Amino acid sequence: MFGTQLKDAVQKTPGGRSAVLMGLDGIPVDFFSSDGEVDIETIGMEFSVILKEVCKTIEQLESGAAEELTVRTDRMTTLVRVVSDEYFIALLLSPDGNLGKARYILRILAPKIRQDLT
Amino acid sequence: MFGTQLKDAVQKTPGGRSAVLMGLDGIPVDFFSSDGEVDIETIGMEFSVILKEVCKTIEQLESGAAEELTVRTDRMTTLVRVVSDEYFIALLLSPDGNLGKARYILRILAPKIRQDLT
Repeated sequence: MFGTQLKDAVQKTPGGRSAVLMGLDGIPVDFFSSDGEVDIETIGMEFSVILKEVCKTIEQLESGAAEELTVRTDRMTTLVRVVSDEYFIALLLSPDGNLGKARYILRILAPKIRQDLT
Repeated sequence: MFGTQLKDAVQKTPGGRSAVLMGLDGIPVDFFSSDGEVDIETIGMEFSVILKEVCKTIEQLESGAAEELTVRTDRMTTLVRVVSDEYFIALLLSPDGNLGKARYILRILAPKIRQDLT
């Protein structure tokens, strides 16, 4: 059921390539990829490690609750949106993709998915 | 000398609070803070750990070279821009700050600082 929502998020994002809904433990719930070359599950798994590190740091700094993480390289942009204490969505874009739109789409999608997960 | 450039970046960013130029080893080169409550050196140091983790992950995924990292919480946004293999800039914004403008400013500033560092 989440696959359709993830597909929708990817296809509505200019430059969107793939997306995964994943547990913070690195286990995927569902994913969609429009790009056979991208292993979104592996990318999500690696980002679950980074996200845990970020959450730990933010807690130490007493800087509020983590909502979003973005990593840009010269080859791709990865947007991570926290869904709950246990789940996150990672969306992969081309470097020239529309990050602003991706952020907006995931901000709207995250609470919907949170509701469905509980 | 970098203090002036960092101050300029903070003041030109709506919602900008502080900025630091730092080595990936967590040692600050220079910083500017318009907000006495924010310990930008500690925040920068913690983000140097995250940035190293991100760089390692990106290398493993063969996903290009890290350029930028953004972390948003409900209380602040931290934008990290890679300057070189050894240095980065971290800029702290209010949650309602203009992240797009901050990204633009650091994208322009990073190569200038890189040139001055060598």
